[in-house]
Amino acid sequence: MATYDTIVRGGRIVTASEVYQADLAIKDGVVAAIGYDLGDSAEVVDAKDMLVLPGGVDTHVHLDQTGLGPEMCDGFDSGTASAAAGGTTTVVCFVWQPKGGSLAQVAADYRVKAEKARVDYSFHLTVTDPTPEVLEVELPQLIAEGCRSVKVFMTYDGVRLDDREVLRVLAAARRNQALVCVHAENHDLIAWLTEQLVSAGLTTPKYHAYAKPMIAEREAVSRIIALAEALDVPIQIFHVSGAQSAEEIARAQARGLKVWGETCVHYLTLTADDLDRPGFEGAKFIFGPPARTEADQEALWGYLKRGVIEVISSDHSPTRFDDPKGKKFAGDPAPFNKVPNGIPGLAARLPVLFTEGVSKGRIDLPTFVRLTSTNPAKLFGLFPQKGCLAVGSDADFILWDPQKTVTLTNALMHHGGDYTPYEGYQTQGYPVATFLRGQQVFDGSAVVGAAGGGRFIARPPYPMITPLQRFPTPFNAVHATLI
Amino acid sequence: MATYDTIVRGGRIVTASEVYQADLAIKDGVVAAIGYDLGDSAEVVDAKDMLVLPGGVDTHVHLDQTGLGPEMCDGFDSGTASAAAGGTTTVVCFVWQPKGGSLAQVAADYRVKAEKARVDYSFHLTVTDPTPEVLEVELPQLIAEGCRSVKVFMTYDGVRLDDREVLRVLAAARRNQALVCVHAENHDLIAWLTEQLVSAGLTTPKYHAYAKPMIAEREAVSRIIALAEALDVPIQIFHVSGAQSAEEIARAQARGLKVWGETCVHYLTLTADDLDRPGFEGAKFIFGPPARTEADQEALWGYLKRGVIEVISSDHSPTRFDDPKGKKFAGDPAPFNKVPNGIPGLAARLPVLFTEGVSKGRIDLPTFVRLTSTNPAKLFGLFPQKGCLAVGSDADFILWDPQKTVTLTNALMHHGGDYTPYEGYQTQGYPVATFLRGQQVFDGSAVVGAAGGGRFIARPPYPMITPLQRFPTPFNAVHATLI
Amino acid sequence: MATYDTIVRGGRIVTASEVYQADLAIKDGVVAAIGYDLGDSAEVVDAKDMLVLPGGVDTHVHLDQTGLGPEMCDGFDSGTASAAAGGTTTVVCFVWQPKGGSLAQVAADYRVKAEKARVDYSFHLTVTDPTPEVLEVELPQLIAEGCRSVKVFMTYDGVRLDDREVLRVLAAARRNQALVCVHAENHDLIAWLTEQLVSAGLTTPKYHAYAKPMIAEREAVSRIIALAEALDVPIQIFHVSGAQSAEEIARAQARGLKVWGETCVHYLTLTADDLDRPGFEGAKFIFGPPARTEADQEALWGYLKRGVIEVISSDHSPTRFDDPKGKKFAGDPAPFNKVPNGIPGLAARLPVLFTEGVSKGRIDLPTFVRLTSTNPAKLFGLFPQKGCLAVGSDADFILWDPQKTVTLTNALMHHGGDYTPYEGYQTQGYPVATFLRGQQVFDGSAVVGAAGGGRFIARPPYPMITPLQRFPTPFNAVHATLI
Amino acid sequence: MATYDTIVRGGRIVTASEVYQADLAIKDGVVAAIGYDLGDSAEVVDAKDMLVLPGGVDTHVHLDQTGLGPEMCDGFDSGTASAAAGGTTTVVCFVWQPKGGSLAQVAADYRVKAEKARVDYSFHLTVTDPTPEVLEVELPQLIAEGCRSVKVFMTYDGVRLDDREVLRVLAAARRNQALVCVHAENHDLIAWLTEQLVSAGLTTPKYHAYAKPMIAEREAVSRIIALAEALDVPIQIFHVSGAQSAEEIARAQARGLKVWGETCVHYLTLTADDLDRPGFEGAKFIFGPPARTEADQEALWGYLKRGVIEVISSDHSPTRFDDPKGKKFAGDPAPFNKVPNGIPGLAARLPVLFTEGVSKGRIDLPTFVRLTSTNPAKLFGLFPQKGCLAVGSDADFILWDPQKTVTLTNALMHHGGDYTPYEGYQTQGYPVATFLRGQQVFDGSAVVGAAGGGRFIARPPYPMITPLQRFPTPFNAVHATLI
Repeated sequence: MATYDTIVRGGRIVTASEVYQADLAIKDGVVAAIGYDLGDSAEVVDAKDMLVLPGGVDTHVHLDQTGLGPEMCDGFDSGTASAAAGGTTTVVCFVWQPKGGSLAQVAADYRVKAEKARVDYSFHLTVTDPTPEVLEVELPQLIAEGCRSVKVFMTYDGVRLDDREVLRVLAAARRNQALVCVHAENHDLIAWLTEQLVSAGLTTPKYHAYAKPMIAEREAVSRIIALAEALDVPIQIFHVSGAQSAEEIARAQARGLKVWGETCVHYLTLTADDLDRPGFEGAKFIFGPPARTEADQEALWGYLKRGVIEVISSDHSPTRFDDPKGKKFAGDPAPFNKVPNGIPGLAARLPVLFTEGVSKGRIDLPTFVRLTSTNPAKLFGLFPQKGCLAVGSDADFILWDPQKTVTLTNALMHHGGDYTPYEGYQTQGYPVATFLRGQQVFDGSAVVGAAGGGRFIARPPYPMITPLQRFPTPFNAVHATLI
Repeated sequence: MATYDTIVRGGRIVTASEVYQADLAIKDGVVAAIGYDLGDSAEVVDAKDMLVLPGGVDTHVHLDQTGLGPEMCDGFDSGTASAAAGGTTTVVCFVWQPKGGSLAQVAADYRVKAEKARVDYSFHLTVTDPTPEVLEVELPQLIAEGCRSVKVFMTYDGVRLDDREVLRVLAAARRNQALVCVHAENHDLIAWLTEQLVSAGLTTPKYHAYAKPMIAEREAVSRIIALAEALDVPIQIFHVSGAQSAEEIARAQARGLKVWGETCVHYLTLTADDLDRPGFEGAKFIFGPPARTEADQEALWGYLKRGVIEVISSDHSPTRFDDPKGKKFAGDPAPFNKVPNGIPGLAARLPVLFTEGVSKGRIDLPTFVRLTSTNPAKLFGLFPQKGCLAVGSDADFILWDPQKTVTLTNALMHHGGDYTPYEGYQTQGYPVATFLRGQQVFDGSAVVGAAGGGRFIARPPYPMITPLQRFPTPFNAVHATLI
Repeated sequence: MATYDTIVRGGRIVTASEVYQADLAIKDGVVAAIGYDLGDSAEVVDAKDMLVLPGGVDTHVHLDQTGLGPEMCDGFDSGTASAAAGGTTTVVCFVWQPKGGSLAQVAADYRVKAEKARVDYSFHLTVTDPTPEVLEVELPQLIAEGCRSVKVFMTYDGVRLDDREVLRVLAAARRNQALVCVHAENHDLIAWLTEQLVSAGLTTPKYHAYAKPMIAEREAVSRIIALAEALDVPIQIFHVSGAQSAEEIARAQARGLKVWGETCVHYLTLTADDLDRPGFEGAKFIFGPPARTEADQEALWGYLKRGVIEVISSDHSPTRFDDPKGKKFAGDPAPFNKVPNGIPGLAARLPVLFTEGVSKGRIDLPTFVRLTSTNPAKLFGLFPQKGCLAVGSDADFILWDPQKTVTLTNALMHHGGDYTPYEGYQTQGYPVATFLRGQQVFDGSAVVGAAGGGRFIARPPYPMITPLQRFPTPFNAVHATLI
Repeated sequence: MATYDTIVRGGRIVTASEVYQADLAIKDGVVAAIGYDLGDSAEVVDAKDMLVLPGGVDTHVHLDQTGLGPEMCDGFDSGTASAAAGGTTTVVCFVWQPKGGSLAQVAADYRVKAEKARVDYSFHLTVTDPTPEVLEVELPQLIAEGCRSVKVFMTYDGVRLDDREVLRVLAAARRNQALVCVHAENHDLIAWLTEQLVSAGLTTPKYHAYAKPMIAEREAVSRIIALAEALDVPIQIFHVSGAQSAEEIARAQARGLKVWGETCVHYLTLTADDLDRPGFEGAKFIFGPPARTEADQEALWGYLKRGVIEVISSDHSPTRFDDPKGKKFAGDPAPFNKVPNGIPGLAARLPVLFTEGVSKGRIDLPTFVRLTSTNPAKLFGLFPQKGCLAVGSDADFILWDPQKTVTLTNALMHHGGDYTPYEGYQTQGYPVATFLRGQQVFDGSAVVGAAGGGRFIARPPYPMITPLQRFPTPFNAVHATLI
């Protein structure tokens, strides 16, 4: 009997720190050994001239959320197909509490929906209505069951929380050891500007960016940092879109706070000008916060290099474009403020970032792995099961051809949508195979992993900062006892 | 017939920039000449060994506001007596819109109340309910009548505005050229902390400071700056209490924004420890935001010297201590969150600041005049009628003995209250006479100005920043047209 | 007999803080009164429609310095004629120690040269060779005689001091209470870059800016601040040319240091592109540090408004252009590094700054007066004799027509040079008369003040910061005793 | 025949990113495999309950430098014994050019001296006299031979370079692709202060800290950053001792510069107070720059966590204490400025840092590995041969007992010195075995690696930043061609 199930031969293994030539042996779905001449195996994967990367971890993915009016065009089946096709083997999706409803019930339903997943997954808990029941009963239970991250919105009618509600969530997160993720934009400023724009008849897609300016995001980032600082709770700021927000995070980190930043590939590659494409095309680029300027892109690369922002996700949030249940939900054309926000991005995340980052010389290979796999896995409690190719870790990996050039098309995305914002984009570097726990799920052209092949990953509680560290003075000590 | 009505002889005149020996001649209530050997006059005031300072301008004074539950113990009569006794000859008080009520009506009533004033006065407009009627009809009218400053609260139930309402007020202020003054503290954080403290039974006065931490103020300062920046409206931040808020203002000014800062004497002299005096004594020091630490005091002096903060007011907000209509309104003792906020400060403002600032060598005489008279007069449109002793200006002045030491007592405050937070404080420097438009209103021991001697001062619109200056890009140009 | 010698009637008086309509009466060369209806006088000056400004104080003026190879084209006669023609009534010039020579001897000689001055003057002491004799004997004596400011160079062969020498000068200045002014550029970086440029044959005037980049200035500014901080000595940074240096000064001020900044009109109006004019024309714009970019100009206006930079001087440093003793001293064309540095600027300073600042709406009238008259007078100990129109101050003033437009030509400069860098510049606002101690010295077209009409102004010692303020810790207390 | 030479069984492997349980197989001195059940081997090392760490890389080690007066008490023999005893398997030492002498000759001699080394080693090139011969002939040759890092001193008589010389070295480093390391302190300020202290009779060891204040270091750090920025050369700042210097580095990194920071264990554990021990004991703690305050220690931990400082070295610089060739070279006691600078630290580096960092919860295990092994290996071109336990890397590793407590004594240091500054310090965590290329060199009590067992590690050139990245403008493009 062969020692190993599979040996990946001849590739160059990339970790969060190193790049080296070695074979990778797998047994029972985990990495059993890395080395030279590892012996025999039932199967051999030829990785000659390929990079062997840890499977991507995408901690910001919307799939199969319902009840919002427009329809998401990706459930767990097509969504995780798209993930596999882009080299991503773990997604973290959103249990989304309906206003006035139960979070636990949605979680239970979502577990069922997720049974169709082709890659592994875990859940954030989106709290839109922090009732005592939710905060004191459901949240502790769900966190204990492995969902130790909570999402809150500071904008969007129907889901947003006011500061008082945010504080209650932060306190509950602290008591139960969950990381809080935040969509940070000042709701009232956006609402006011939208009102003015609409009154003035300025409603084409490009005005989406005028309605949601950088300053609205910077303000909310500064505010959530203050609230988190007051309650001593670690937070991640979702989708940092430009320099001003990143600078607020850098300032917080310099004060010693556990404030983490995420950005998305689209903020590094698109700008507000994309919203101004002819006709209603700009609606394809309506997401929130909007893409900013080239100067913001440049600044974000700097913050990524300095470690101020340390996760790059897709914020995959897919609706079809040419569809009355999608971007045209409110008409064709519809005013910008009636167009569903969000773009698909799961399959494009790694190829586009590799091209812009590694192939163009902005970041090195270990940094690419850190930003897209290791860091999100660590921050969200998936590590070391996910996010690395250490011995004992799940054998989730990509064979990546660093020289392969591909012109992106919607078909290559393997998702349920009818467009990709990266149509025509030329990559340098592309996944030629994706493996999940040792089993191939993407073969370079087709998704071969079965629906249902993915598993739920339970995550341990987030290790909270102790009162002693963040509450050194008598003044703060009182606060610490209150939270 | 004498050339002048009055000549003030032999004093040293202090302006916002200079100190020099000269006589000051007055005719018809205005400064007619400054110089040597000015000729004859009906009256002579001997100012030998005295400083001749412009009368104090206090742009943050609460008098005779009603309908709030507890009772203010100063109306225009006693309040302006206290002003005169402290060298202040102009006060700006608050027309205070009741929730659901008319601002214009209160303004009309307030004009009648103010007829008892012993010094000159003008009004801020406190908007607590920005209805279309108020913003589109009343506000323009009242600003046109001379009240070109608007006050908004970001905290306190019953008066606070949410961001959307604040934006509407900012836009109205921009259209009508009014400066917006802001009480900036994060309401929800304070409410949440208060709830925790009260639940934990921590209700003595010292917990007032725990409920309203620096961070709640810093957050709101950062937020209002963002909102004002988005709409390109000048603002003054009221009662900056410590380093973190001042730093936010400094950052805004470095970006070129018209964001001004005010602090009060109590933030330079008191600390949160004063709230921890025995028994219910701490309630005498309950005001919002609370006094902070000695390090904050030191930092504030630095920001004053650098010009980041440029006005020092009293925030006179008087209730009696030993009185069921005052600090004991909700009981004796009452929990901190039921104690009316505010302290008296009109009479103490100049003597205490002179002692701490000039006599202790922290600031020079022209800086003292700028902070307490010239700058507030300029910022609020009273200048040059008030705030200086230039030829043509109102002959409002103080004879100030820089060597006189006085131990402060409540009686010396000449106000309606039963305590002063500075009881026992030893000044070096004190007013020995106060004159309003050439007429003596305080003689060093008694207030001799008649109730009704004060006049309303109408103020011209605030010169707005033009769109070209603050909205240089196409992006912002659209915004400019919306506001 | 008339009460006053002269009355200036009907003008608007501008001070560092106020603007108001009043007459100004003069007796014995000083301001005797300001007011309405001041009585009779021997002479009347009609100031209808005119501003009455304090005479300009220019604290950075090079006149009649010898022994440097090229020749200055302005001595005290023509230089102060130019001053008068531009509204400046006080200049501070440089006693310039020759390497290896006596400072006192130069000072004595310079006093004789200065007897031809047409406006008042005082002297800085330029130390190029800090021998014990100079530091311990001459400097104390000269400071005691009224020259309480010392100049050091961090670059230029033959005059520059190394850090050790700078420290000795700083310590001597501290002991004798003098303010130290600094030309701050990193000598070695400039020398190295010059060497590279010359080796590469890049020697036209435009390479002057390449040889002296912003970074060389920023470095030296940062360094001199550190040295001054270590020894607790107030300094003024001369000719801040751009944003990076100004930011270092702002940081120092935020730490509470007495570090002051000066800039010159040419840094607000010229850029490095002016060095790239056809042929050898660029040599007309060779001065050090060089002009920078439009972004730097914009930044400097910001730092001026915030008070980080508070003096604007001319750095008048004149040599003729088309002259083998001037800009062509080393040939026509000469390589940039052989061209004498410096431009004329005395007469243009106020008109150009008024146009760019006041007429274009960047600063108000009191700020104009502060930057060009009051602040330099205060910082350098000329105040209140100079720098203001307070009663008792010297009656140095300008009648300024804010509407007068003038196209600048060399002839209007009334100096010894053959060019002005502002040839063809259109002003809005111009001096129509200049008075020194009550006597007219410029009548709007001709300089009518006599050579020899100027007087030396002795200045009192600079009040040092006490050890207690800047040396709070035991650590620093030791240092304080050493200096 | 066994597959592997050695298998390390049962330990927990720590990398720069991960911690996991696995066996480590070695063949021919390199890591051949990591995994479970790796098969047979000639030897087995039991690592049960142990951490398996990459061998320490200490990139700042002084051994066997001669000609300086005092004698180093460690040559390569004893010095690398101490390294092995502390878990360090690679040291980078200093080829030290004598003033006026040849660098190449010293390098040749040093290669011979180093033949006694017990661990691997490489060389920095200390340039004290940048003659054309050294810069144009020797330096390129030595860099080509594998010494691609250059050291310069900004202070210390006899070795320091002035800015002009530093610039020549930076330019040569750029041309030849070497990283420049800098001892940054302002020489003249230190010299001046020393002079004052000595004149005042303040010469006990504690005045060492008064003579070399933080400000002297901050200034030089700011200056070298400016010079490196001007020439676009990457630099590492050696031994950052406190907050002010670290902040300058952070600012440079925020501008996008390749400026790296190193600190040493003693700056995290000692303070200036240690210099004030009774009698001459303080001399044991004389090193430069001196240790600062507890606040600086706390700040340094913050900068380490944020990645601003990314290497922790020993700066092992050993002289004996009770020895006329050591600390008492100039007498017993000698004035502080005559005492040789430097302390031993090779053996203590890892145990003390582990205790303070990992055991006290300030940093995690991967961060410990990064700071002490991976990062220095990467920055100095030793990676991936050194600095990690990747397959193919040298099998340099430590068996580390995280629970072992040891009270440090001089004997445990295994060096040539007669004291350790950490005498009596209690560790939690200690190396129980050290292996070099698969061979044991330390067994937990004795150094068992043979003198001569170490090898020279040649390092490839440092990849320079391209002109396009750092010189975007026409202005800078010219500069780029000059360097």
